[in-house]
Amino acid sequence: MKPTHIEHIGIAVENLDEAIKYYENILGLKCYAIEEVKDQKVKTAFFMIGQTKIELLEATETDSPIGKFIEKKGQGLHHLAFAFDDVDSALKSAGEKEIRLIDKESRPGAEGLKIGFLHPKSTFGVLTEFCGKK
Amino acid sequence: MKPTHIEHIGIAVENLDEAIKYYENILGLKCYAIEEVKDQKVKTAFFMIGQTKIELLEATETDSPIGKFIEKKGQGLHHLAFAFDDVDSALKSAGEKEIRLIDKESRPGAEGLKIGFLHPKSTFGVLTEFCGKK
Repeated sequence: MKPTHIEHIGIAVENLDEAIKYYENILGLKCYAIEEVKDQKVKTAFFMIGQTKIELLEATETDSPIGKFIEKKGQGLHHLAFAFDDVDSALKSAGEKEIRLIDKESRPGAEGLKIGFLHPKSTFGVLTEFCGKK
Repeated sequence: MKPTHIEHIGIAVENLDEAIKYYENILGLKCYAIEEVKDQKVKTAFFMIGQTKIELLEATETDSPIGKFIEKKGQGLHHLAFAFDDVDSALKSAGEKEIRLIDKESRPGAEGLKIGFLHPKSTFGVLTEFCGKK
Protein backbone atom coordinates (compact mmCIF):
# COMPACT_ATOMS: atom_id res chain seq x y z
CA MET A 1 0.00 0.00 0.00
CA LYS A 2 2.56 2.49 -1.21
CA PRO A 3 1.78 5.75 -3.04
CA THR A 4 2.90 5.88 -6.68
CA HIS A 5 3.81 9.57 -6.75
CA ILE A 6 3.02 13.01 -5.33
CA GLU A 7 -0.34 13.77 -6.95
CA HIS A 8 -0.36 17.45 -5.99
CA ILE A 9 0.85 20.10 -3.61
CA GLY A 10 -1.81 22.49 -2.31
CA ILE A 11 -0.73 26.10 -1.78
CA ALA A 12 -2.92 28.72 -0.06
CA VAL A 13 -2.69 32.17 -1.69
CA GLU A 14 -4.30 35.51 -0.92
CA ASN A 15 -4.77 36.50 -4.56
CA LEU A 16 -5.14 33.77 -7.16
CA ASP A 17 -4.63 36.00 -10.21
CA GLU A 18 -1.37 37.43 -8.89
CA ALA A 19 -0.07 34.01 -7.86
CA ILE A 20 -0.91 32.54 -11.28
CA LYS A 21 1.25 35.27 -12.86
CA TYR A 22 4.18 34.22 -10.68
CA TYR A 23 3.89 30.53 -11.55
CA GLU A 24 3.50 31.32 -15.25
CA ASN A 25 5.97 34.19 -15.72
CA ILE A 26 8.70 33.25 -13.26
CA LEU A 27 8.52 29.46 -13.18
CA GLY A 28 7.35 29.02 -16.76
CA LEU A 29 4.45 26.72 -15.84
CA LYS A 30 1.07 26.85 -17.58
CA CYS A 31 -2.22 27.17 -15.70
CA TYR A 32 -4.44 24.56 -17.39
CA ALA A 33 -7.60 24.86 -15.27
CA ILE A 34 -9.36 27.21 -12.86
CA GLU A 35 -12.16 25.70 -10.82
CA GLU A 36 -14.41 26.99 -8.03
CA VAL A 37 -15.37 24.48 -5.33
CA LYS A 38 -18.38 26.18 -3.73
CA ASP A 39 -18.82 23.89 -0.73
CA GLN A 40 -15.16 24.48 0.26
CA LYS A 41 -15.49 28.25 -0.47
CA VAL A 42 -12.38 28.09 -2.58
CA LYS A 43 -11.16 28.95 -6.07
CA THR A 44 -8.36 26.76 -7.41
CA ALA A 45 -5.82 26.97 -10.24
CA PHE A 46 -3.87 23.94 -11.53
CA PHE A 47 -0.39 23.58 -13.05
CA MET A 48 1.36 20.39 -14.12
CA ILE A 49 5.05 19.81 -13.47
CA GLY A 50 6.40 16.32 -14.20
CA GLN A 51 4.12 13.81 -12.43
CA THR A 52 2.81 16.39 -9.98
CA LYS A 53 0.24 19.17 -9.95
CA ILE A 54 0.46 22.44 -8.13
CA GLU A 55 -2.97 23.46 -6.84
CA LEU A 56 -3.27 27.10 -5.82
CA LEU A 57 -6.14 27.80 -3.41
CA GLU A 58 -7.78 31.17 -2.82
CA ALA A 59 -10.57 31.48 -0.24
CA THR A 60 -13.78 33.00 -1.62
CA GLU A 61 -14.85 33.78 1.98
CA THR A 62 -12.80 34.52 5.11
CA ASP A 63 -14.82 31.96 7.07
CA SER A 64 -13.55 28.94 5.14
CA PRO A 65 -10.76 26.36 5.60
CA ILE A 66 -8.30 28.30 3.42
CA GLY A 67 -9.36 31.69 4.84
CA LYS A 68 -8.73 30.46 8.39
CA PHE A 69 -5.42 28.86 7.41
CA ILE A 70 -4.14 32.14 5.93
CA GLU A 71 -5.36 34.11 8.97
CA LYS A 72 -3.44 31.77 11.29
CA LYS A 73 -0.28 30.91 9.34
CA GLY A 74 -0.17 33.25 6.34
CA GLN A 75 -0.19 32.16 2.71
CA GLY A 76 2.04 29.27 1.72
CA LEU A 77 2.25 25.48 1.55
CA HIS A 78 -1.08 24.02 2.69
CA HIS A 79 -1.35 20.27 2.00
CA LEU A 80 0.37 17.32 0.37
CA ALA A 81 -1.50 14.76 -1.74
CA PHE A 82 -0.23 11.23 -2.42
CA ALA A 83 -1.54 9.19 -5.38
CA PHE A 84 -2.63 5.64 -4.58
CA ASP A 85 -3.93 2.92 -6.86
CA ASP A 86 -6.70 2.18 -4.35
CA VAL A 87 -7.62 5.15 -2.16
CA ASP A 88 -10.15 3.40 0.09
CA SER A 89 -7.76 0.56 0.91
CA ALA A 90 -5.04 3.10 1.71
CA LEU A 91 -7.37 5.07 4.01
CA LYS A 92 -8.55 1.86 5.70
CA SER A 93 -4.99 0.67 6.23
CA ALA A 94 -3.96 4.02 7.78
CA GLY A 95 -7.04 3.98 10.03
CA GLU A 96 -6.20 0.48 11.25
CA LYS A 97 -2.77 1.77 12.23
CA GLU A 98 -4.44 4.38 14.47
CA ILE A 99 -3.96 7.33 12.14
CA ARG A 100 -6.71 9.91 12.70
CA LEU A 101 -8.72 10.22 9.49
CA ILE A 102 -10.75 13.26 8.45
CA ASP A 103 -12.40 11.01 5.82
CA LYS A 104 -12.91 7.37 6.76
CA GLU A 105 -13.99 6.66 3.20
CA SER A 106 -13.08 8.48 0.01
CA ARG A 107 -15.30 11.19 -1.45
CA PRO A 108 -15.35 12.80 -4.90
CA GLY A 109 -12.69 15.49 -5.38
CA ALA A 110 -11.48 17.77 -8.17
CA GLU A 111 -10.78 16.32 -11.62
CA GLY A 112 -12.92 13.22 -11.01
CA LEU A 113 -10.54 11.79 -8.42
CA LYS A 114 -11.49 9.99 -5.23
CA ILE A 115 -9.96 11.74 -2.22
CA GLY A 116 -9.65 11.45 1.55
CA PHE A 117 -7.78 13.49 4.16
CA LEU A 118 -5.66 12.46 7.14
CA HIS A 119 -5.56 14.74 10.18
CA PRO A 120 -2.29 16.70 10.63
CA LYS A 121 -2.24 15.72 14.33
CA SER A 122 -1.46 12.17 13.14
CA THR A 123 0.88 13.10 10.29
CA PHE A 124 3.51 15.28 11.97
CA GLY A 125 1.80 18.56 11.09
CA VAL A 126 1.25 17.90 7.37
CA LEU A 127 -2.36 18.02 6.21
CA THR A 128 -2.22 14.89 4.05
CA GLU A 129 -4.53 13.84 1.23
CA PHE A 130 -4.79 10.41 -0.38
CA CYS A 131 -6.18 10.43 -3.90
CA GLY A 132 -6.53 8.35 -7.01
CA LYS A 133 -8.76 7.13 -9.77
CA LYS A 134 -10.40 4.29 -7.84
CA MET B 1 13.53 28.09 -18.27
CA LYS B 2 10.94 25.68 -16.96
CA PRO B 3 11.49 23.21 -14.10
CA THR B 4 11.42 19.54 -15.10
CA HIS B 5 9.80 18.21 -11.92
CA ILE B 6 9.41 18.70 -8.19
CA GLU B 7 12.83 17.70 -6.89
CA HIS B 8 11.79 17.53 -3.24
CA ILE B 9 9.41 18.72 -0.58
CA GLY B 10 11.01 19.82 2.70
CA ILE B 11 9.07 19.04 5.89
CA ALA B 12 10.05 20.35 9.34
CA VAL B 13 9.56 17.79 12.12
CA GLU B 14 10.13 17.89 15.86
CA ASN B 15 11.38 14.31 16.10
CA LEU B 16 13.06 12.74 13.07
CA ASP B 17 12.95 9.14 14.33
CA GLU B 18 9.22 9.26 15.05
CA ALA B 19 8.46 10.94 11.71
CA ILE B 20 10.54 8.34 9.82
CA LYS B 21 8.38 5.61 11.40
CA TYR B 22 5.23 7.32 10.06
CA TYR B 23 6.57 7.64 6.51
CA GLU B 24 7.80 4.04 6.54
CA ASN B 25 5.00 2.24 8.40
CA ILE B 26 1.96 4.22 7.30
CA LEU B 27 2.93 5.44 3.84
CA GLY B 28 5.13 2.47 2.96
CA LEU B 29 8.09 4.62 1.85
CA LYS B 30 11.70 3.71 2.53
CA CYS B 31 14.17 6.07 4.18
CA TYR B 32 17.29 5.74 2.01
CA ALA B 33 19.56 8.30 3.67
CA ILE B 34 20.02 10.23 6.88
CA GLU B 35 22.39 13.19 6.74
CA GLU B 36 23.44 15.89 9.21
CA VAL B 37 24.10 19.34 7.75
CA LYS B 38 26.09 20.99 10.53
CA ASP B 39 26.14 24.56 9.20
CA GLN B 40 22.33 24.51 8.92
CA LYS B 41 22.03 22.82 12.36
CA VAL B 42 19.73 20.24 10.87
CA LYS B 43 19.40 16.46 10.55
CA THR B 44 17.64 15.24 7.41
CA ALA B 45 16.02 12.00 6.24
CA PHE B 46 15.22 11.25 2.59
CA PHE B 47 12.49 9.18 0.92
CA MET B 48 11.84 8.71 -2.80
CA ILE B 49 8.34 8.70 -4.25
CA GLY B 50 8.03 8.75 -8.04
CA GLN B 51 10.21 11.61 -9.34
CA THR B 52 10.19 13.43 -6.01
CA LYS B 53 11.97 13.20 -2.68
CA ILE B 54 10.54 13.92 0.71
CA GLU B 55 13.16 15.57 2.92
CA LEU B 56 12.38 15.53 6.64
CA LEU B 57 14.24 18.18 8.63
CA GLU B 58 14.85 18.13 12.38
CA ALA B 59 16.66 21.03 14.04
CA THR B 60 19.71 20.00 16.05
CA GLU B 61 19.53 23.36 17.89
CA THR B 62 16.56 25.62 18.70
CA ASP B 63 18.46 28.62 17.33
CA SER B 64 18.46 27.42 13.72
CA PRO B 65 16.30 27.99 10.64
CA ILE B 66 14.17 24.87 11.25
CA GLY B 67 14.03 25.45 15.01
CA LYS B 68 12.72 28.98 14.48
CA PHE B 69 10.23 27.82 11.83
CA ILE B 70 8.76 25.20 14.20
CA GLU B 71 8.61 27.72 17.05
CA LYS B 72 6.67 30.16 14.85
CA LYS B 73 4.45 27.91 12.73
CA GLY B 74 4.69 24.41 14.20
CA GLN B 75 5.98 21.35 12.39
CA GLY B 76 4.79 20.79 8.84
CA LEU B 77 5.48 21.68 5.20
CA HIS B 78 8.58 23.87 5.03
CA HIS B 79 9.82 24.38 1.47
CA LEU B 80 9.32 23.34 -2.14
CA ALA B 81 12.22 22.52 -4.48
CA PHE B 82 12.00 22.63 -8.27
CA ALA B 83 14.49 20.76 -10.47
CA PHE B 84 16.05 22.76 -13.29
CA ASP B 85 18.51 21.69 -15.97
CA ASP B 86 20.54 24.84 -15.31
CA VAL B 87 20.13 26.22 -11.79
CA ASP B 88 22.24 29.36 -12.20
CA SER B 89 20.37 30.43 -15.34
CA ALA B 90 17.06 29.86 -13.57
CA LEU B 91 18.18 31.95 -10.56
CA LYS B 92 19.49 34.69 -12.85
CA SER B 93 16.27 34.78 -14.83
CA ALA B 94 14.14 35.04 -11.66
CA GLY B 95 16.39 37.80 -10.32
CA GLU B 96 16.03 39.76 -13.56
CA LYS B 97 12.25 39.58 -13.10
CA GLU B 98 12.62 41.26 -9.69
CA ILE B 99 12.20 38.13 -7.59
CA ARG B 100 14.05 38.51 -4.28
CA LEU B 101 16.77 35.87 -4.15
CA ILE B 102 18.31 34.44 -0.98
CA ASP B 103 21.08 33.01 -3.19
CA LYS B 104 22.07 35.03 -6.22
CA GLU B 105 24.24 32.16 -7.38
CA SER B 106 23.91 28.47 -6.65
CA ARG B 107 25.82 26.82 -3.82
CA PRO B 108 26.51 23.14 -3.06
CA GLY B 109 23.56 21.33 -1.43
CA ALA B 110 22.72 17.81 -0.25
CA GLU B 111 23.36 14.86 -2.58
CA GLY B 112 25.86 16.78 -4.71
CA LEU B 113 23.21 19.09 -6.17
CA LYS B 114 23.58 22.80 -6.87
CA ILE B 115 20.92 24.76 -4.99
CA GLY B 116 19.62 28.31 -4.52
CA PHE B 117 16.69 29.73 -2.56
CA LEU B 118 14.09 32.37 -3.46
CA HIS B 119 12.64 34.51 -0.68
CA PRO B 120 9.04 33.66 0.33
CA LYS B 121 8.15 37.38 0.22
CA SER B 122 8.53 37.14 -3.57
CA THR B 123 6.96 33.70 -4.00
CA PHE B 124 3.56 34.06 -2.34
CA GLY B 125 4.67 32.66 1.00
CA VAL B 126 6.39 29.52 -0.29
CA LEU B 127 10.07 29.17 0.59
CA THR B 128 11.24 28.04 -2.86
CA GLU B 129 14.42 26.21 -3.80
CA PHE B 130 15.85 25.75 -7.28
CA CYS B 131 18.13 22.76 -7.67
CA GLY B 132 19.78 20.52 -10.20
CA LYS B 133 22.93 18.79 -11.31
CA LYS B 134 24.51 21.79 -13.05
